[in-house]
Amino acid sequence: MSELIRSVEVMRTSGARAHQLLRESDLVACEEPLELQIDGQSLAVVMRTPGHDEELATGFLLTEGIIKSVDELVTLRHCTTVPSPEAEDNVMQIRLAKPFDFSRMKRHFFATSSCGVCGKATIENALRVSRPVTSNTTIARDVLASLPEKLRAGQVAFEQTGGLHAAALFDQRGQLHVLREDVGRHNAVDKVIGWSMRADVSASILMVSGRLSFELVQKCVAARIPVLAGISAPTSLAVEMADALGVTLIGFLRGGSMNGYSHSERIA
Amino acid sequence: MSELIRSVEVMRTSGARAHQLLRESDLVACEEPLELQIDGQSLAVVMRTPGHDEELATGFLLTEGIIKSVDELVTLRHCTTVPSPEAEDNVMQIRLAKPFDFSRMKRHFFATSSCGVCGKATIENALRVSRPVTSNTTIARDVLASLPEKLRAGQVAFEQTGGLHAAALFDQRGQLHVLREDVGRHNAVDKVIGWSMRADVSASILMVSGRLSFELVQKCVAARIPVLAGISAPTSLAVEMADALGVTLIGFLRGGSMNGYSHSERIA
Repeated sequence: MSELIRSVEVMRTSGARAHQLLRESDLVACEEPLELQIDGQSLAVVMRTPGHDEELATGFLLTEGIIKSVDELVTLRHCTTVPSPEAEDNVMQIRLAKPFDFSRMKRHFFATSSCGVCGKATIENALRVSRPVTSNTTIARDVLASLPEKLRAGQVAFEQTGGLHAAALFDQRGQLHVLREDVGRHNAVDKVIGWSMRADVSASILMVSGRLSFELVQKCVAARIPVLAGISAPTSLAVEMADALGVTLIGFLRGGSMNGYSHSERIA
Repeated sequence: MSELIRSVEVMRTSGARAHQLLRESDLVACEEPLELQIDGQSLAVVMRTPGHDEELATGFLLTEGIIKSVDELVTLRHCTTVPSPEAEDNVMQIRLAKPFDFSRMKRHFFATSSCGVCGKATIENALRVSRPVTSNTTIARDVLASLPEKLRAGQVAFEQTGGLHAAALFDQRGQLHVLREDVGRHNAVDKVIGWSMRADVSASILMVSGRLSFELVQKCVAARIPVLAGISAPTSLAVEMADALGVTLIGFLRGGSMNGYSHSERIA
């Protein structure tokens, strides 16, 4: 059995046999904590589906603004000195090229602006730390329309458990680069971005199974991916952020339809 | 228009008119940051859908272990002295009965156990800070089967935007106490729990629209709610946590079927 999945016992009742609870076994998506440590000091604990932990850690470091490129990463490896076997795969030790100032870390990494906390200030803060994504790429509508089926086809663990989010990176012609599944939708995206850090993503599309929130747009900007697409709905701040930071945001991409919420000039 | 929803401009293409992009207007779920401050010092910034902010803050304080009951809360109100009008509703000022030690706050509030970070240690930590939920309540299967439709009927803003999670509290007979919608599924649950803190929830069911993760079980335990039900799948750690902490976990509750993953003795 894949490390993404675990078997559990379940009491099941279903329509036709609603009068009885039957003991059966069921497959669920695996969720385990991963502690990220820089120079032995704890940076964060992420609840994730095991697997591709190096990519997850790399993507996390980039999208949280701790590194700007993989060159700033000296080593990244699972801890091998934990006292219990269960914990062996759940600590990732990171060494950076420059010493890391832990006092920089704030929960959710938001800076409070002098005019207070609001959507406008959030976008102004984002513009202070990132340039907008510039890319002259255009993606054909039929390529976009083909992505949901390709995403679904790659969601192997979702098919078995119904409990995993997916993120995938496609090129301009709709060819799949990489697909990752995780109980956390942010983790799935961080794994894809961690994978992509040595690749050219200037004409790529990030496609996700879940909703399009502000934080996913922020992650695209950090990774310089010009197009973010999803099967489901965006939030108001995701639309504003994508508009201000140069990301093409496409929602409700399903059944051949789509809504372009920002920078629709990249939809050909 | 409700504060849960905003209108945006969208370029739309749909199957029948796939050859053209049409400019239309669309409704999206509102997402704005809320800063929680204790005695003027920043505790956390949460990306949330505005509305019911006092409940959200109260539920957050409880489920993150900062307070144990509403008696520890002296005041809770929106800041009225922010310099910009956009920010007016986005800062919540909290005063607690006892001084708060900010050094207690860790990202994600996980304590690293001496045996390392793993699912087992996470549950052991949870057992150190919380007793298991004890409740002799039983819920009839037909009551459980009726909940998804009642949840959906209350998801007014979801109907308009497709972009909001919902959480609701029902009594033993399936009567709705409260329903909240939010772009963040944790926020929706925190709002419901914040509402419920002066109520008796010892025979209540928390029903959610999204997946059943470890953190949702942890929130149920903090609020002493004995039954957590969802339309979708649980994770492995949610099942283990619910089993160890006395929570009845019901997944795939839809179309008259359900899976009981733990403490199914409460399903009558």
